[in-house]
Amino acid sequence: MARKRITILGATGSIGRSALDVAARHPDRFEVVGLAAGGNDRLLAEQVAAFRPRLAALGDPAAAARLARDAGATAVRSGPEGLAEVAALPADLVIAGIVGSAGLLPTFAALEAGNPVALANKEALVMAGPLLMEAAARKGLPVLPIDSEHSAIFQCLAGHRREDVDHILLTASGGPFRRTPKAALAAVSPAQAARHPNWDMGPKITVDSATLMNKGLEVIEACWLFGLAPERVRVVVHPESIVHSMVAFTDGAVIAQMGLPDMRGPIAYAMAYPERIPVDVPAPDFATLGRLTFEAPDTERFPCLELAYRAAAGGGTLPAVLNAANEVAVAAFLDSAIGFTDIPKVVAATLEAHAPKPIRSLEQVLAADAWARGHAREGLPSGVAAAAAARPG
Amino acid sequence: MARKRITILGATGSIGRSALDVAARHPDRFEVVGLAAGGNDRLLAEQVAAFRPRLAALGDPAAAARLARDAGATAVRSGPEGLAEVAALPADLVIAGIVGSAGLLPTFAALEAGNPVALANKEALVMAGPLLMEAAARKGLPVLPIDSEHSAIFQCLAGHRREDVDHILLTASGGPFRRTPKAALAAVSPAQAARHPNWDMGPKITVDSATLMNKGLEVIEACWLFGLAPERVRVVVHPESIVHSMVAFTDGAVIAQMGLPDMRGPIAYAMAYPERIPVDVPAPDFATLGRLTFEAPDTERFPCLELAYRAAAGGGTLPAVLNAANEVAVAAFLDSAIGFTDIPKVVAATLEAHAPKPIRSLEQVLAADAWARGHAREGLPSGVAAAAAARPG
Repeated sequence: MARKRITILGATGSIGRSALDVAARHPDRFEVVGLAAGGNDRLLAEQVAAFRPRLAALGDPAAAARLARDAGATAVRSGPEGLAEVAALPADLVIAGIVGSAGLLPTFAALEAGNPVALANKEALVMAGPLLMEAAARKGLPVLPIDSEHSAIFQCLAGHRREDVDHILLTASGGPFRRTPKAALAAVSPAQAARHPNWDMGPKITVDSATLMNKGLEVIEACWLFGLAPERVRVVVHPESIVHSMVAFTDGAVIAQMGLPDMRGPIAYAMAYPERIPVDVPAPDFATLGRLTFEAPDTERFPCLELAYRAAAGGGTLPAVLNAANEVAVAAFLDSAIGFTDIPKVVAATLEAHAPKPIRSLEQVLAADAWARGHAREGLPSGVAAAAAARPG
Repeated sequence: MARKRITILGATGSIGRSALDVAARHPDRFEVVGLAAGGNDRLLAEQVAAFRPRLAALGDPAAAARLARDAGATAVRSGPEGLAEVAALPADLVIAGIVGSAGLLPTFAALEAGNPVALANKEALVMAGPLLMEAAARKGLPVLPIDSEHSAIFQCLAGHRREDVDHILLTASGGPFRRTPKAALAAVSPAQAARHPNWDMGPKITVDSATLMNKGLEVIEACWLFGLAPERVRVVVHPESIVHSMVAFTDGAVIAQMGLPDMRGPIAYAMAYPERIPVDVPAPDFATLGRLTFEAPDTERFPCLELAYRAAAGGGTLPAVLNAANEVAVAAFLDSAIGFTDIPKVVAATLEAHAPKPIRSLEQVLAADAWARGHAREGLPSGVAAAAAARPG
């Protein structure tokens, strides 16, 4: 069996490290041909030494220069062009694991070069869903989901007819503040918000989980991945994070995908698809678990979910604006510049001020993104806006 | 679209009535061509008037004679030959819904005639699994499951590779005595045992649910339907009966099928397969349900499950002996002749006394069945044995 050529964008992040863990367990199946990251040259150098890819790139030129000094036979590139060059390297699967809007261009570069994509970067679909799905369709390429919820939906849909789907149910852990009274939410700290009850992820996604914006972005992502209108994508809070998501069919049957919360599961599924490979994650022991609980999301305490539905329904450039305003607001919150309950306020004010347009080009999406960042920053306390503007992506 | 020709064996029972409810909701999809039952000529006459099948049969000749008087254009047959003739009528699906060993011969008759079978009669597989699967394979016919658990497994396996299956998890409600202390079980009445917490079924199956023998028979059924060794079929108690069963894959992922407990779901799935049709059963509302709970089965209080695993592991004629001894014991319990905790004792004593043989013919299976009934009756209190012997099936 020929090995699958794998490229990983975002190799030093949470998704990338897990993907390399999977690759290392199955050297007979996977050949890592390309690795790209932002600025962590130390970790990328270790990964290059271990996997010896043909090409590696770092977004930060200085870090790339350091990496180039001991990359052996691996060619090193830098900057956005470097990331795009790694993405375009001939591969059987490009894992798009760069978080945030920075992952958008490399993901398109992978598809334009004819590479199948496994998508962990939800912003690519949130910002430019129509363009990305159109690019994949034009090239006849699959877009495999890596988010645990979307991988679950993908697995639940397998073997069933799309026309029999009534709705899908994305599960949400509810985040660390599921039981926090509304009055106490304004005072929660970045450190408290960064503690996810079940998943080990980066700080941006963890804050998004706490606000439920992460689930809102996933609703938009699901609409594009599975061709569903927003009202057919529902959210249910499930604090144990065992049921990763479900599909309800027209006959009242529901198919659910479950597993222990470990990203290597969905990553390995995308990497080995259509096969399954063991990754040292046992199946849940239901008798020991004892119970799985469910509740409706509280959109009064967590308004970000409703904001995402509003952006999804409005369409066009609105989801990109939602995402950009949220990135600015979360960065400001992590800097302790605004409070937790200010995040939805910044996003809502930016959405209100935006006149959405249908998406025709990536430039237009990036312009809406830039406009939204600017508008969101204007709403921040003075001094914070300048610091946020200096922050990359 | 040509309508599917449906024959229902056991038309007046719980499964049969549900199947006709489904057929009545979709007259554009289904044409009922054959109906067979045991002795309820009044209900079968109503069904014949409503669905006008080509052929109807009753096992009881006197009841068949009464039916024949107002069956209109429908031809009427009687006795075991009559049931077999209905089963052999050309059809696109024969629903095998006759409970107990009485359903065995008509199910084989359906397969031998080249009719695809949807199996609600678990005894056919328990008693004669190798023969039945061999007959279906020889004719190239599907055997679709109708038991909610096996339909769930079938739905969970769709779209996934069989070689990736690690084990399956059959869910069990735990029955009405899940919380009854061991000391109190000896004194429970047939009326108490006949009250199933979630499913509306006949008295025999309901008692089997209370002893967990029903789950044991389903383990054996699952081994045959899905080609799995008994140790790869596990049982977990799930009192809410929302998760109908699950499949655990080698990568730690679990796919589950869920739904409200209504047999029309799995029946409609088998009838319309590979499509799904609405049957007025909504999807579960997880936020309202609140929780799904799981626990390990208590094999000390409910030894029947272990007895079934022992019969499955022993193979050959042992499962037929298990089933026959259980039918005798349950009948005696329903007659208040023996206590609830005597049921596993009767079954265990009969299994102990049996020297299993590989299954080569239906006659051999029926001989083992007859031997087991005789042996089990000998173990009953005197007087009871005679009454049990006079009872059909």
